[in-house]
Amino acid sequence: MNTTRTITLKNRPTGKPELTDFGFTTSEIPELKEGEVLVRARYVSVDPYLRGRMSDAPSYIPPFELNKPMASGVIAEVLESKSRNFSKGDYVSGLLPWKETQVITADGLIKVDPDKAPLSAYLGVLGMTGLTAYLGLTEIGKPKMGETLLVSGAAGAVGSVTGQIGKILGLRVVGIAGTDEKVEMLKSEFGFDDAINYKTTENMVEAIASACPDGVDVYFDNVGGVISEAVLFNINKFSRTVNCGAISVYNNTELPKSISVQPFLVKKSSSMQGFVVTDFADKHSEGVRQLAEWFSQGKLKFSETIREGFENIPQAFLDLFDGKNKGKMVVKL
Amino acid sequence: MNTTRTITLKNRPTGKPELTDFGFTTSEIPELKEGEVLVRARYVSVDPYLRGRMSDAPSYIPPFELNKPMASGVIAEVLESKSRNFSKGDYVSGLLPWKETQVITADGLIKVDPDKAPLSAYLGVLGMTGLTAYLGLTEIGKPKMGETLLVSGAAGAVGSVTGQIGKILGLRVVGIAGTDEKVEMLKSEFGFDDAINYKTTENMVEAIASACPDGVDVYFDNVGGVISEAVLFNINKFSRTVNCGAISVYNNTELPKSISVQPFLVKKSSSMQGFVVTDFADKHSEGVRQLAEWFSQGKLKFSETIREGFENIPQAFLDLFDGKNKGKMVVKL
Repeated sequence: MNTTRTITLKNRPTGKPELTDFGFTTSEIPELKEGEVLVRARYVSVDPYLRGRMSDAPSYIPPFELNKPMASGVIAEVLESKSRNFSKGDYVSGLLPWKETQVITADGLIKVDPDKAPLSAYLGVLGMTGLTAYLGLTEIGKPKMGETLLVSGAAGAVGSVTGQIGKILGLRVVGIAGTDEKVEMLKSEFGFDDAINYKTTENMVEAIASACPDGVDVYFDNVGGVISEAVLFNINKFSRTVNCGAISVYNNTELPKSISVQPFLVKKSSSMQGFVVTDFADKHSEGVRQLAEWFSQGKLKFSETIREGFENIPQAFLDLFDGKNKGKMVVKL
Repeated sequence: MNTTRTITLKNRPTGKPELTDFGFTTSEIPELKEGEVLVRARYVSVDPYLRGRMSDAPSYIPPFELNKPMASGVIAEVLESKSRNFSKGDYVSGLLPWKETQVITADGLIKVDPDKAPLSAYLGVLGMTGLTAYLGLTEIGKPKMGETLLVSGAAGAVGSVTGQIGKILGLRVVGIAGTDEKVEMLKSEFGFDDAINYKTTENMVEAIASACPDGVDVYFDNVGGVISEAVLFNINKFSRTVNCGAISVYNNTELPKSISVQPFLVKKSSSMQGFVVTDFADKHSEGVRQLAEWFSQGKLKFSETIREGFENIPQAFLDLFDGKNKGKMVVKL
């Protein structure tokens, strides 16, 4: 009988998660039944939003259970199939438990083509990451050609795609990131018009004003916290803030306080709107089609940080909160 | 030669305005020219948003100039006319300087009918106040029958109309106000389903949860500050906050801090949007028509606090910030 390793949630973290919050178990792989496939994970996605599922506070998706597997987007290879939809050798994408090898129902798996794009791209620019950037920007940000788009967490997986889509749509695009190297990458690789290193900038309000001389029309916010406070002073009348994430405060143990947004929103007739990519489930297939087209035209580059080894998944996840990734963080098995 | 008294902005207030920030001058009334009318003010509106125009910080409307007249919505009687649009004895509504009697161009004045509604109603439920409630609620709040609407500053001019429109539209309506008398009035006079006195409630998060057992779908926010913090814990997925005002923090001399809204917006796919009534200028005439219809059907009551005397306009304005008004505050001359 074959066995597999599994990574579980061992403790619910308070504040920043630690390696000891994760557990490793070994268990037998059950026999394959009708409608199921046996798959081996090849790439595992680690994402900031998983932090929310490690807590049991109410959220948009149910929390992980203690001593049960963690799960995220996974690209896997089909080793055996009792599903008519998949054959041995196929590659599939799905939201799967963190196991090296597993038997799983074929429902909810999507076939991906390794010849059209690197397998890891299906976890990023052609997967949930790309859809988050595309649908958040177009459905909530509603940008008009010539407007200014400001992106925080710009060197991250979602941010770097958001900025590139902004350029495709004819916007002035400015990014905020945390190292000079990332700032350089945003400008030279991803075509951002300008970028700001918030860690070495003393006055963010002025730096944003200088990089966005016509003000900010769309703010795609991945970070929240003090960076987003500085943006408030630069928003234009009728500006739209797309609240994609707030990684800067996810590990806070007390409720974070910020400058009150209400007076700014009233003065500027401005909006803020949060979302998760599943809110726009009916637009996913159109989104993937558009992203794949831009990708095949060479208009959409992606950046990724690839770690190796099943046992290193937890550390890769933790490193997200220290900004150690450039672009999408994935673990190759 | 006739003269008129004028109320001017004497000092830009820091923090709460005081009587000494206003000046009184007397000047001659110029001769009437073609296209102008001579009018005598009968009712003058005082509104929280005027506080913003007393500062010179950038805002959606230019600030008042020092030693120049204050201005707001005024209902006036036409004493003499050299405009083909108005005759002696007509009543008009307009955004006018705080003068007892004045010569003014007829452009931008609207005729109002004292037989259809009391004159003061044209400053309130059938004027900018009613339009603010109606357009903010319908255009931004987008309520669906059966949803829950929570209104802060509910006993104020805009709040009391908002709640009544919510009832007309088939919502559960809960109000927040600052005295037991106002709470009682919201329920008995304006048909709110429930109301909360925030000054005597220890735990606002729980009080809102109890008054809104299905959560809050639309939050019409007139106050900002700590009350709006408590609302965050009660918003539903896809909830909409209409940011109409933030009177609780308008007099702050430092930037007010609140619990960061971003994590709540992301978790709940929720929106916040600020506005001023002029954003929807193309919908004003339809709005006034709808409000007048509901008013004539007896579905829309209004509450007002009427002060008397030109010289008491500044005090009436100051009293807004202590919640001394019930409904629309107007000064009768």
